Amino acid sequence: MQEEALEYHRGGKIQLEAKHKLENQADLQLTYTPGMGYAAEAIIEDQTKSFEYSWRQSAVAIVCNGTAVLGYGNVGPEAALPVMEGKSVVFKRFAELNAIPLCIKETEPEAIVKFCHQIQPSFGGILLEDIKAPECFEIERQLKNTLAIPIFHDDQHGTAVVVLAGLLNSLKLTQQTADSLKIVINGAGAAGLATARLLHEYGFKDITLLDSKGIVCRQRADLNKYKTESLEYTNQENISGQLIDALDQADIFIGLSKANLLGEAEIAAMKPEPIVFALANPVPEIMPDLAKKLGVKIIATGRADYPNQVNNVLAFPGILKAAMDKKSQINNKMLIAAAEGLAACVENPSFEKIIPMAFDQGVFDSIYQAIMQN
Amino acid sequence: MQEEALEYHRGGKIQLEAKHKLENQADLQLTYTPGMGYAAEAIIEDQTKSFEYSWRQSAVAIVCNGTAVLGYGNVGPEAALPVMEGKSVVFKRFAELNAIPLCIKETEPEAIVKFCHQIQPSFGGILLEDIKAPECFEIERQLKNTLAIPIFHDDQHGTAVVVLAGLLNSLKLTQQTADSLKIVINGAGAAGLATARLLHEYGFKDITLLDSKGIVCRQRADLNKYKTESLEYTNQENISGQLIDALDQADIFIGLSKANLLGEAEIAAMKPEPIVFALANPVPEIMPDLAKKLGVKIIATGRADYPNQVNNVLAFPGILKAAMDKKSQINNKMLIAAAEGLAACVENPSFEKIIPMAFDQGVFDSIYQAIMQN
Repeated sequence: MQEEALEYHRGGKIQLEAKHKLENQADLQLTYTPGMGYAAEAIIEDQTKSFEYSWRQSAVAIVCNGTAVLGYGNVGPEAALPVMEGKSVVFKRFAELNAIPLCIKETEPEAIVKFCHQIQPSFGGILLEDIKAPECFEIERQLKNTLAIPIFHDDQHGTAVVVLAGLLNSLKLTQQTADSLKIVINGAGAAGLATARLLHEYGFKDITLLDSKGIVCRQRADLNKYKTESLEYTNQENISGQLIDALDQADIFIGLSKANLLGEAEIAAMKPEPIVFALANPVPEIMPDLAKKLGVKIIATGRADYPNQVNNVLAFPGILKAAMDKKSQINNKMLIAAAEGLAACVENPSFEKIIPMAFDQGVFDSIYQAIMQN
Repeated sequence: MQEEALEYHRGGKIQLEAKHKLENQADLQLTYTPGMGYAAEAIIEDQTKSFEYSWRQSAVAIVCNGTAVLGYGNVGPEAALPVMEGKSVVFKRFAELNAIPLCIKETEPEAIVKFCHQIQPSFGGILLEDIKAPECFEIERQLKNTLAIPIFHDDQHGTAVVVLAGLLNSLKLTQQTADSLKIVINGAGAAGLATARLLHEYGFKDITLLDSKGIVCRQRADLNKYKTESLEYTNQENISGQLIDALDQADIFIGLSKANLLGEAEIAAMKPEPIVFALANPVPEIMPDLAKKLGVKIIATGRADYPNQVNNVLAFPGILKAAMDKKSQINNKMLIAAAEGLAACVENPSFEKIIPMAFDQGVFDSIYQAIMQN
């Protein structure tokens, strides 16, 4: 596939086009001077008209600094370009948004906040992407409080929404309710912390979070402030230890971190017939075949070659588009609505289909409408 | 026209499109994960491949802060959006470049320089637009010295190139040579100073520059450093006074500032049959009909409804595209080559056609080739 993919990427995957033809002097007078002057005058009179007389209402800045790209890590802004162009293609296809990759050479959170403020007049929304934790949390927090246009950090909330959607259909199938279940989340970066938070907001009561050092608990002195904050709603019994300790009698495991973590002992430690979302990419925490063999009831991964692919592509176009059209920042209520909308796209959930595929009918509309009605 | 123009601008004049279809899971695997990973890996290995495996080689950032928009002045970044979209349409039409309007809320030169450094990894070139003087000079100087991608300040050098091109054909018609002529340039902002500089570099020897206070001369204590620097190659006799004093026996007047400056007395002060470029927009320094009546031999304006329209649209697509393909900063030699290329597009210059129109055959190619061969 490598050769085909490189050829496919040559010259980029996106391009601009003019919406009107430009073939003669009359066209030029409309699109350029003096025509553009009338649009400028309308905006001078009323700044909000910039959403009307430019592409601003549909324009998204994808802001990325390349410090946490895909499975590659801190590889810099240049290498993030094909990834952000991929997001751009998805935005266009599913939400009719014009999303511009702005892969920037900048690692200071304050400077990234300032950058987003600088570009705000040109865009209707901002997608933060592949900025490493914990910096991404501070950047997002400040921007949510100060920007007039919606901002969405996909790595956090896109993942959280798709995970919640998958869980909602899983619980429908297992006839369980959120508040009675024990959940273990492995990975306390952007995706892990945001998922824990959203599951808590939805009504899950028993959530245990782990990072590379073990269970996130009050005894630990090495936690950053975001992990410490998560203790307000996770690990209420304040247990400590490693993954195997956390998994004791757990109903659900959500892996957002490392390949091949789960084996026979780990699955055996959980309740019978557990739910496992093994979302590490490209190699999951446990391969679906093995999971099934060990008695896992529902297995989801991030991979397209197995059923139940948990993929952010499902969520971010609809969520950001709805927020932009509402001209509203994105809150937990909207994220939960998005997850419910996404879950509802699967008419008859089964163990092999707890979540829609990207090209299933109505995915975008369902999320978009769910948020607009909230 | 106002109503038609506003309708034309609704929702913007530009949009993104994907270069490949995205209709099924196989497409998604190429454009998104895992396909984009191969492009990312190639760039991780060799950063310069970002020009090859993304749209970077054709991507231009139009950086503007809205402090000197059109004839409107300091109206802010939002109102500049339709203007920058107009530039974007022109870039696409004539140079196949993808130019993104980045109208930013930022007035500090240092911060704009930093902004351009931050976005550099995502673009192949930067067009500075409608940033007021003298800030634009410092921004451009710093960026030319520190960026690895070409930067072009259209208000300065685009204007200078088109003016020089018009003069080259004018002198062909009047059978005069650059070094024997007295030129008066009214306006010592971005366009005026850059035009003076380029005319000097080309070989014009007697150039007098004026700003709103009068002739730029050594006696004045109120000059900014850029006007002071211009005295190295303008006003060698160090005359002082107002426009009427500067015009005494002048061969050429280039107006880049204020409407209706030239009347009977001003034209009478000049040599017989002078050349007048009255480029103030939308109302020129003198209307062509009056100029002709008063004995002006060649009159050019910025307007499309009179012959000899001096319009930056002619120059910026070819200049920036050539610099991007050369991966070179733009120097005076390249600008002079561009002016000569542009002038050469008019096969048989006449008093009513010293410069091509935007849609004349070969304008882009002529400029592009002239620079590539330099």
